[in-house]
Amino acid sequence: MLDTIDHGDVRELRLARPPANALDPDLIALLADAIEDAPHTAKRAIVISGRPGMFSGGLDVPELLKLDREEMLTTLRDFFRLMRNLAESPIPIVAAITGHAPAGGAVISIFCDARVMADGDYKIGLNEVQVGLSLPEIIHTAATRVMGARHAERLGVAGMLVTAAEAHRIGLVDELVPAEAVVERALERCRDLLKLPPKAMLATRELCRRDLVQAFAKQEERTYEKFVNDWFGSETQGAMRALVERLKKKSA
Amino acid sequence: MLDTIDHGDVRELRLARPPANALDPDLIALLADAIEDAPHTAKRAIVISGRPGMFSGGLDVPELLKLDREEMLTTLRDFFRLMRNLAESPIPIVAAITGHAPAGGAVISIFCDARVMADGDYKIGLNEVQVGLSLPEIIHTAATRVMGARHAERLGVAGMLVTAAEAHRIGLVDELVPAEAVVERALERCRDLLKLPPKAMLATRELCRRDLVQAFAKQEERTYEKFVNDWFGSETQGAMRALVERLKKKSA
Amino acid sequence: MLDTIDHGDVRELRLARPPANALDPDLIALLADAIEDAPHTAKRAIVISGRPGMFSGGLDVPELLKLDREEMLTTLRDFFRLMRNLAESPIPIVAAITGHAPAGGAVISIFCDARVMADGDYKIGLNEVQVGLSLPEIIHTAATRVMGARHAERLGVAGMLVTAAEAHRIGLVDELVPAEAVVERALERCRDLLKLPPKAMLATRELCRRDLVQAFAKQEERTYEKFVNDWFGSETQGAMRALVERLKKKSA
Repeated sequence: MLDTIDHGDVRELRLARPPANALDPDLIALLADAIEDAPHTAKRAIVISGRPGMFSGGLDVPELLKLDREEMLTTLRDFFRLMRNLAESPIPIVAAITGHAPAGGAVISIFCDARVMADGDYKIGLNEVQVGLSLPEIIHTAATRVMGARHAERLGVAGMLVTAAEAHRIGLVDELVPAEAVVERALERCRDLLKLPPKAMLATRELCRRDLVQAFAKQEERTYEKFVNDWFGSETQGAMRALVERLKKKSA
Repeated sequence: MLDTIDHGDVRELRLARPPANALDPDLIALLADAIEDAPHTAKRAIVISGRPGMFSGGLDVPELLKLDREEMLTTLRDFFRLMRNLAESPIPIVAAITGHAPAGGAVISIFCDARVMADGDYKIGLNEVQVGLSLPEIIHTAATRVMGARHAERLGVAGMLVTAAEAHRIGLVDELVPAEAVVERALERCRDLLKLPPKAMLATRELCRRDLVQAFAKQEERTYEKFVNDWFGSETQGAMRALVERLKKKSA
Repeated sequence: MLDTIDHGDVRELRLARPPANALDPDLIALLADAIEDAPHTAKRAIVISGRPGMFSGGLDVPELLKLDREEMLTTLRDFFRLMRNLAESPIPIVAAITGHAPAGGAVISIFCDARVMADGDYKIGLNEVQVGLSLPEIIHTAATRVMGARHAERLGVAGMLVTAAEAHRIGLVDELVPAEAVVERALERCRDLLKLPPKAMLATRELCRRDLVQAFAKQEERTYEKFVNDWFGSETQGAMRALVERLKKKSA
């Protein structure tokens, strides 16, 4: 479900949960753990990659709809732990967005240091609102850092997915390369950073990302209750069950 | 002076004060009231539009120069009420910028959710400084959210008007469409938002706009006194009377 | 080492320390003083320019490596005084970036009101990390205002130099003109600002730059100790001595 491939100093964490690399409770916890572990095993940078054509389809809604309130709260805490581990990582992390990256897929990427995306007919965006989920504040904070207040509001409120080209234009991703070169380019970006004087690079990195790290302290606790209340509300349950029906028809 | 046209759930408020839709005390108060009323009459979104070729020429300087200090203060409070009603609106508002939008025209638009502008030889910008008015802090805050700190400083300090094309390039407007399609496109943007799960959309909208709403509490009171003092100062009076002379010659 | 050329109301401060306009302790102090003096001699705007092809190569590392801790601290305080004088200047300052502007060269420019750069094969950027220096917080703050959080992080952490064209694309500079027209265009920008009603222009300018000025109060004191400790640490000393070797070979 999560493959670990070491390229010298750089660890690639490859999402491998077919067909859509959807984030179920186990994958969320595994990825959160793996981000935390990498620096303790002498790795100096991380690449998060997906399958060709699909980085991650986001939360596994059909699986998550089976959870009771307590299980959902645990999963939510793990998802916040994942975001916080990405934000606080003491080593650089580059997202190798190998294909589509809606919702949770995009979320993972905006907490990374940089985003390399496959140039092609792939979509990325914060479409949480489309499935009846309001955007958690920390995700809006991360989105604003990456693409500015106007685009973060525009995409967030409308629950909008955009093409790779549009994502590049508005700064949601940093670079487009041919699909088959995404992982290699992400590795190269890591290697470039590792050639730098390490103390200066890491101290500057800590400085530049401090606003994101500090935002967690202020936002985290009050978010859980709100999110879980929303989740079990009729609007969100209705929108998500409609989504599950569409997914079933699509795969039939 | 302000036409109300209902398109199903969406209310269009059309500025209709020839020739320039200049904002005199009555139009300012009417528009502020209309923004506040729309959600109470079961409307779910608002479009603010103007005349073909002219969204709004901004404050009606010749009319405002006739006011005494007390009347000016009342007008100023109404203008701030207008901006705050736009920022705090519980339903989305899209500006249909049908033509020129200098000063007050641009100001109205940057407190809306989105800006659709006529593609053509139209100007928009924050040219307050040109007529001797320093930019109120809340307008700078709104401008910074929309186009970033650098452009907000650049346009604000120089009192610069830019073309529709340049406004689009720097993010001051979101989208350019042919002049005759501006209102329809703004309506369509509203309808797209209204198709979304409403609680999630509105909660995310509240989150994304909270910084703007909170800025009012901090800034509003201290601004009135300063603005009115500036207004009756010799530099501003001189610059505005020169403007009125130019307007007279132009219309002669 | 610093030429003063008055063009009517506008003072040009031309860096003139061949070959690279490198900032040694004397030039830093001279420039800081000159910025402070200009408004006291009835000047109403400032242009900072360099040599054709070279705005400034940044800190004169070979010279600075000769300083002991106390001397380095004095130089550092002068460099912060230079940045603060630029940020707090009561009159507009435009950077005429006549050529390359790495590190300290770029730093000077991002505290100015605007940046006009020579269109050509010139590089600009915050490459401090490349020589083992972590970026001081106030420089990151200024960079974020100019080009947004994403680019400030991207360039700062990687210690990246970019071409003039790329600098323009990401907002690090405002305008590109042919090399021989850079100073004249910067003068023209100053003159345009000086045609405006002065009180309104200067009050708006103060408003738009207040965030930068306020950032100094919070950041300055804690930075000195950290910077000097880093400076005399083995990583930074090693990286800078390697740089000096490269410079020697290059000029040999």
